[in-house]
Formats: sequence, C-alpha cells, structure tokens
Amino acid sequence: MSVPADEPLISTTKLLAFAETMLAKLDVPQEHAALTSRILLEADLRGVASHGMAHLVDFYVRRLQNGKINPRPEFNLDSDQPSAATLNADNGLGFAAGHHAMSLAIEKAQTTGIGWVSVGNSTHYGAGAYYAMMALEHDMIGFSMSTGGRLVAPPGGLGRAIGLNVLSVAAPTSREFPYVLDMATSVVAAGKLEIAGRRGESIPEGWAQTAAGEPLTDPAKLHPDSTLLPLGGTPVLGAFKGFGLTIMVDILTGALSGFGTSAEIDSGLTAAHCFGAMRIEAFQPLADYKERMEHMIAAIKDTPKREGVDEIMIPGEPEHALAEERRADGRVPVHPRVLAGFKEAAEEFDIPWDLEEGS
Amino acid sequence: MSVPADEPLISTTKLLAFAETMLAKLDVPQEHAALTSRILLEADLRGVASHGMAHLVDFYVRRLQNGKINPRPEFNLDSDQPSAATLNADNGLGFAAGHHAMSLAIEKAQTTGIGWVSVGNSTHYGAGAYYAMMALEHDMIGFSMSTGGRLVAPPGGLGRAIGLNVLSVAAPTSREFPYVLDMATSVVAAGKLEIAGRRGESIPEGWAQTAAGEPLTDPAKLHPDSTLLPLGGTPVLGAFKGFGLTIMVDILTGALSGFGTSAEIDSGLTAAHCFGAMRIEAFQPLADYKERMEHMIAAIKDTPKREGVDEIMIPGEPEHALAEERRADGRVPVHPRVLAGFKEAAEEFDIPWDLEEGS
Repeated sequence: MSVPADEPLISTTKLLAFAETMLAKLDVPQEHAALTSRILLEADLRGVASHGMAHLVDFYVRRLQNGKINPRPEFNLDSDQPSAATLNADNGLGFAAGHHAMSLAIEKAQTTGIGWVSVGNSTHYGAGAYYAMMALEHDMIGFSMSTGGRLVAPPGGLGRAIGLNVLSVAAPTSREFPYVLDMATSVVAAGKLEIAGRRGESIPEGWAQTAAGEPLTDPAKLHPDSTLLPLGGTPVLGAFKGFGLTIMVDILTGALSGFGTSAEIDSGLTAAHCFGAMRIEAFQPLADYKERMEHMIAAIKDTPKREGVDEIMIPGEPEHALAEERRADGRVPVHPRVLAGFKEAAEEFDIPWDLEEGS
Repeated sequence: MSVPADEPLISTTKLLAFAETMLAKLDVPQEHAALTSRILLEADLRGVASHGMAHLVDFYVRRLQNGKINPRPEFNLDSDQPSAATLNADNGLGFAAGHHAMSLAIEKAQTTGIGWVSVGNSTHYGAGAYYAMMALEHDMIGFSMSTGGRLVAPPGGLGRAIGLNVLSVAAPTSREFPYVLDMATSVVAAGKLEIAGRRGESIPEGWAQTAAGEPLTDPAKLHPDSTLLPLGGTPVLGAFKGFGLTIMVDILTGALSGFGTSAEIDSGLTAAHCFGAMRIEAFQPLADYKERMEHMIAAIKDTPKREGVDEIMIPGEPEHALAEERRADGRVPVHPRVLAGFKEAAEEFDIPWDLEEGS
C-alpha cells in the first residue's frame, strides 16, 4: 500500500463534496449521494484504491448517465422473516442498497441474535468491508458478499464462467483495530490488474491465464478473452477451494435473492449481494469473546518470523493504521489519470474545480 | 480419489457394526456410538479417507481410553436466543455434539429463517461436510466450521500459530448432487500428508514449509516443527486470504463460543465448532432458487476446457457420484495398515473379528 510519488494528495473534504455534487447532477438523492461518496472515500482512506474514488466517474457516473443505474430506486422487501429478508434494490446504486440491507440485518440481529439479508437487482457496491464493518459499533460480527464481474475460469476451464465474487467479514477484537477480511475469491481482484496497468507494471504468474491456458503477466492483455484464476491458482494448490468459495458467494447472493448469480447477470454492471450480522452477546458475554480474541492475536504476533518480517499483521490491522493516518492528515492519494478524468467530468457537468494537490 | 490396488474393500455394514461395538466398549452410549460410526463411514463413502474410519482407533478410541474424551457428555446451552445458541459439549465426542448442535440450528431456521449455534468444549468431529449436509433435506443451506490442530504458520511466520481450521457449506442444487464445499483453510489438510506418508509418496512444493521456511516435500518431516501454509501459499498468491479465512473460523467457533480458538486450545484434541442453517424459502421460493442454480451449473459446465479435462465438476459432485457407487457396492476401501490396527484393537477389546476383504 505504498503510495507512488506521482500520486498527488487530495483533501478528503473536497473529494467528498466533489463526489456528492457530481452524483447530485445525475439525479441521485442527497442521502444516496452522501452514502456513496463516504463509502468510496473510506476505501481510499484504507488504502484500497482499487475500490475507491478512482471508479467514481467511469463506473458510477457513466452508468447513471447511460441509464444502467437507477438514480432514484424504491427498495422493496420480497421477503421479511424474523431473521431473514430479501431486498429488491430496484437497480439503484449498490452503496445505498448495501447500507439499507446491512442496517436491516443489524436490526434483526438485535432481536433474534442474527440477521441475514440477500439483495438482488442491485449494482456494484464498492469495497465490501464497509458494510461488514457497520456491525462493529453494535458489538456484532458483520458479513458482506457480492457477485462480481464474470472474469474467472473454473479449475480445468479456459473461459469466463464465474464472477470476481467478494467476501468480507468484520469482527471486534481486543485491540484498537478490528479484524477485517475483505477478499475476492480469485487469487486477486481485477482492480489489482488495473492498478498494475496504470503503473505500467507486469503481474506475477499465477494471477491470470490466457485463453489458451498459458500464464498471463501483462495486465493490459486481460481483455477480451483471458481469465483470472480462483484462489489457490492450480488444482494441486487448492484452486477447488477458491472455486468453491466463489460458488458459495453466488449461492448466498444471486441464488438466494432469486435475481441471478454471476454466471447469469449482466457482467460487472448489475450485482447481487448479501449482508449478515451476528450479535456477540447472543452467544457469549463480550468480555469472554474479547479475552479469546486477545489470546489469538497475541499468539499470532508471537510467532517466529521470516527474515525481513518485522511484525505479523492481523487482517484489517494495516488498513486501520493507514486510515487513522490519512484521516488525521485529511488527504488521500489520487492517481493523476483519475484526477484528469475528474477534471474532464467537472467541465462536462459544470462543477467548480478545486481538487488540487494539498489543498 | 482413486483407490490404490492394495486397499482391500470392506463391507460397510460390518465396518459400522465394528465401530459401534468398539465405541460401546469405551462406555459410549448407543446413540452416540451409532452417530459417530455413521459419520465416519459417510466420509469413506464420499472418498474422504483422511476423515473416515482410518481414525477410529488412533483418534477416538485411544482418546476415550486415556480420558481425553468424555464418553457420556451432558450437553448444556450456555445461551439460547431465537436464532442463536452456544452449546457446551462437555468434552464429549464431536460427532454427537455436532449432530445435536446442527439439529438445533435447523430447528431455529424453521422458525426465524436462520439458526446459528456455536459449540465449545468439544473434540474432533470428523469431516465437516456431514453436518452442513444435514440442512439439505430441509431445503436449507448448511454451514459447519471447526478449529483444527495448530499446525499452520501465518504469512511471514515460521511457527505454528493457527489451526488447520475447516469450513463446510452445503446447498441444494437443481441437479441430483448437492453443492458441498468441505475445505481446510490451509492449502491442504494434514490428512493429505498422512495419506501421502502411508503411501510413501512425496508432497508438492507449496503445501508446507520447514522451520527455516524452506519448502517441505517429505510428509514424514512435518513433525515436530515444520508448518503447513494457509490457502494461497505465498503472500503474492493470496496467503493473506487463507490466513484471514482461518481467523474467521476461529472467531466463529472458539471466540464466539467463548471456549478458545485454535491458538489456545489443546492442539488437535479439543475443538470448537459452529453450525448454521438458512431456510431458502425464508428468502425466495425454492423453485426460483433452483432455476438460478441450474443456470449457474450449466454455465460452469459449458466453459471451454483445458486439454485432458472431460468435465468441470461442481464441488460435491464427484464425492456424490463416488458415494452412490460405494453405497450400491456396499463396500469401502480400507488401507491395510488401518485394518491391521483394527485387528489389534479387536483383540485388545475382545471384539469378534470379521473385517475381511469382500465379506
């Protein structure tokens, strides 16, 4: 998560205002525009540039503009049980649907111990960690999953059959940072190839393959017919596990919501999600839970290390540290190419331009 | 899952009777003895020899014998909410605790849509798939997770900090076979090394490392200080994901139950689990769910294949086919060394010996 020297640091306040203004120009109501901007910025604060503001214009604004995303969705519950529900997101912004559905899961967990909400007819929701992390302030464990674009080959396959599905889990710990797992069920997410492409870097063998099944190392050659590999990479190193996890996400999102898995939905445009919350005190006193967590974290950090490794970090720990630092600084790095896209869009939508470095 | 020619085929009826009789000799009540034997045999039927009858004597009988497992546990609910519960398994056989807890999760899901039960103070429960699959006949999606022996190094680490934790998910499909994911969150489970060891085979690079961090390829050298690697293997190929999944299982089992994660519990002897059930019709009509599943399965099977790959199989599909075949045949393969151990134990416990090939 090092920041290349050529990425200017931009004020988070101004970025938020810019994104909100931009979305409002596309007829997105203020509440949804604010949520979307906040969730995108949180990804940048946590160093997840692949799911942050970089996509504001090309993913969301362009799709709102060409009618692929409904700016004013009406959310409807197709099913509503004490611990379970299914939300039809009316093809609105995934951020608004995700926030709404996760809030409902948390509400159900307050009553019964667990809440689980599947969401269909939605669109790309950014980084899944945000929704899972909504559970933390309620002393709950949070889950968030989503279908992703159909770019992954099953083990033994050479074509695009399954999605870049994602799985996020967040849980309180005994320390300042929460545990946060935020992963694509492929070896890497497509965003990593985009970033390597923007930086002109090659990618390691094992991330992707050509249509003929040869290793792909030039990120620019992903399209149109190369594929990403499921976590594990090759069958002997566990690709059936990554494949199985990808299907698990598809089942809990696209099949359970009834709106279609990544094999079926319009690749990368529409999406199905699910959100879950488990109230820790429905299982065990919070203090006991935290004692067990502390023991685990201490044991992991006490492990003998490889040369050159200073500290073993818990998933979510480095992102938390970076977010604290960037929040204090009030700025996040934005790639010059992304900033240029913002400037063009500002002109197009007649938005005053004030996103300059350090301002 | 090919069967080496030197593994005799033994009658499933006789194996079941043998295991039940053996467990009864160790003071295990009939119901628990029958459940344990059935769950072990199901693993053998599905070709998961690493978690089947092979462990009857060395894992379970020996631990009952030396007081490490309580033959007559009293299960107690530490917490019981509409959708959530925590079971204290009283150090009984994990099979009995698992069956009891999964049944409770299914019962809760009938009422609220979801049930989730964490279990502490338990012992090794065999193959997790059995419990997750209990959900299938109720048209539910099933989950089962467990801590495993502390044998895995975190990314960047060289010591045993985390468990061979396992995650199982089962879901109905549109086809005859169910979707069943049954995975260790490491590249491979320890059972794969045991089997390679019994067969005198080496293991691929990427499964395990020596205490110095070099690749380990001789399975006999796992103990005392080598380690297995989390799924992904190396950081660049996603080891942080396997590591994060391992911790997720620890949180949902050992921390949520309050009885301790794999970092803390007596490695490989005691265990914490969790079990979940989601009623599909609490989210969506079953027919709609199955339609989405059929679309997904068809798309995966239609993918262009690598040379030499006849068919892309869904997780659980090959195990289902093998189990059908073996159920019809009424026999499963048992390694001669395992059979010899059975014979010795039969003499020790004064059990009539009738486990001969083909009988």
